[in-house]
Amino acid sequence: MRIVLVGFGVVSRSFADIIHTQASALSKDHGIRPRVVGIVDSRGAATSADGIDIQTALRSKEATGTLNELGANIYTEGKGALDVIREVDCEVVIEATPSELTRGEPGLSHVRTAMKEGRHVICVNKGPLALAMPALMELANHNDVKFKFSGTVGGGTPVLDLAKKCLEGCSINSIRGILNGTCNYILTKMTSEGVEMKDALAEAQKLGYAEADPTADVGGFDSACKLVITSNYVLGTSLSIKDVDITGITGVTKEDIASAEADAKALKLIGFVGDKARVAPEQVPVTHPLNVSGTFNAITFDTDPAGEITLVGKGAGGRETASSVLRDLIEIRKDFAR
Amino acid sequence: MRIVLVGFGVVSRSFADIIHTQASALSKDHGIRPRVVGIVDSRGAATSADGIDIQTALRSKEATGTLNELGANIYTEGKGALDVIREVDCEVVIEATPSELTRGEPGLSHVRTAMKEGRHVICVNKGPLALAMPALMELANHNDVKFKFSGTVGGGTPVLDLAKKCLEGCSINSIRGILNGTCNYILTKMTSEGVEMKDALAEAQKLGYAEADPTADVGGFDSACKLVITSNYVLGTSLSIKDVDITGITGVTKEDIASAEADAKALKLIGFVGDKARVAPEQVPVTHPLNVSGTFNAITFDTDPAGEITLVGKGAGGRETASSVLRDLIEIRKDFAR
Repeated sequence: MRIVLVGFGVVSRSFADIIHTQASALSKDHGIRPRVVGIVDSRGAATSADGIDIQTALRSKEATGTLNELGANIYTEGKGALDVIREVDCEVVIEATPSELTRGEPGLSHVRTAMKEGRHVICVNKGPLALAMPALMELANHNDVKFKFSGTVGGGTPVLDLAKKCLEGCSINSIRGILNGTCNYILTKMTSEGVEMKDALAEAQKLGYAEADPTADVGGFDSACKLVITSNYVLGTSLSIKDVDITGITGVTKEDIASAEADAKALKLIGFVGDKARVAPEQVPVTHPLNVSGTFNAITFDTDPAGEITLVGKGAGGRETASSVLRDLIEIRKDFAR
Repeated sequence: MRIVLVGFGVVSRSFADIIHTQASALSKDHGIRPRVVGIVDSRGAATSADGIDIQTALRSKEATGTLNELGANIYTEGKGALDVIREVDCEVVIEATPSELTRGEPGLSHVRTAMKEGRHVICVNKGPLALAMPALMELANHNDVKFKFSGTVGGGTPVLDLAKKCLEGCSINSIRGILNGTCNYILTKMTSEGVEMKDALAEAQKLGYAEADPTADVGGFDSACKLVITSNYVLGTSLSIKDVDITGITGVTKEDIASAEADAKALKLIGFVGDKARVAPEQVPVTHPLNVSGTFNAITFDTDPAGEITLVGKGAGGRETASSVLRDLIEIRKDFAR
């Protein structure tokens, strides 16, 4: 399978490393022989029909921040993703550029172009899905290509697959989840140490759990993206992030936390979809499985007749999320084989 | 699909009720038109090639404890399961007689006979699997029939499916779980109310969570069965219950619970399989997702590279477990269609 990686951040690099180091297992267990024929980053693009040497690419990126150690035959500074997607023969495009939630670009154009060129798409970027998921599902269908996005929700934790593959014959009435590890870390810290929001946030930033501009996380927007993707995929809704009523955690005080604790509850940033879709701080009973600490994500599917089913795992991480990308690739390979 | 129900306890009756009331959805969504052509209970058997009227069967069982209201054309007192499995044309046999852990009978003979007759088997009875799972997998394979047993672990919570269908490309290093809701209820009660084992057990019996003879639960044997089934299915081991080092919760004291609490841990009956297989009371950090309360079950798969993934849900219940049987049936139908 010939693959183009669009975006060469931590998830893409982990994925490249995994398919390189596990090449023989992938071939033996799943009949997959991945060949990376294109890598695009913010500076330029590397392409090679014979396959790009992964170790050199990773080393070059680490040492210089660019891919130029791959050599002038392979690397072209300034070459853009759309050109690579159009020009390089490949079966699968992996879109892993940073999420942008106003227009979804440049990811949205990458995904659309790849589909129109007949490439299967694995998308790790939440932006295009939060804004235009129904249209993209339609476009994939129209072009007869697979569109997978397991890594957009739950990192390596198979949230979407659990609901889709393991709950057949059940109806899912509602979904309630802690979908952002940064917020959960901050709220857990405020609870366990009695500190104020700003101090917990500063600690999260120090540990690399929160970005310098934490708005996407603490404003609830990242959770809302994941809620939209989960709802559309699992419940068959046609939501965009604009349909979600969003309240982040920036207004949460020590007193809110204490008041929840007095009732044997924990204050959590919850994404909920049932009769409506919202993200907001909510009190969760301390004994409920959703009450997970630290950076954990958790999601509860309220089903009939199997009852409440909760999945808990790390919601982020390069290698973890790369495992979702690999799962998507295995799934595409299986669909081929049918 | 023609189905024979062997055993007509709470799970079978819930299953019969579900396929009866959801007949049109099953046909529309999954192309399944189930027809129950045989029901065997401890007193006799009902058979009808045209399909047994489910409502009458359920009403008869409830009112009289037998199936004799189905009428003498259909119901034969004293008719046994093996005869029905051999004589009645059907595609699927659902084995749901009570678990027995010494010889696995009569379930083991039912399963073997059904496979030899070329019937697909859905087994809800842990006994045959705990004792002879590798041989039964082999026999199913040899006779080219499907062998499903989702309901034996986790009730309606898709423990086995999660591991098998949603973690491809990951390696699973070990499995650690709370697999028995009765024990978890007792330990939770001892923790939250500071009561002794015997009082918590009495309460569990009063609420119907524990049986009059609680040995299978509190002795750790039920947990060990589920551990064996999970390990064999997910990790590809060939364990029987004899290979599991089993310590139940009967020796747990208030002091053990208090000593765990002093370390911010909770005492739980844990089934573990990794370098070895054991069931024993273990201290779990209170903040770990495995620390679930009441009758919940929880299982953690330690994976690479997706990290620890924990699934939590009700581990028992007639309707919940029946949803697993239905999932197995849908899966068998899909395999047919391929």
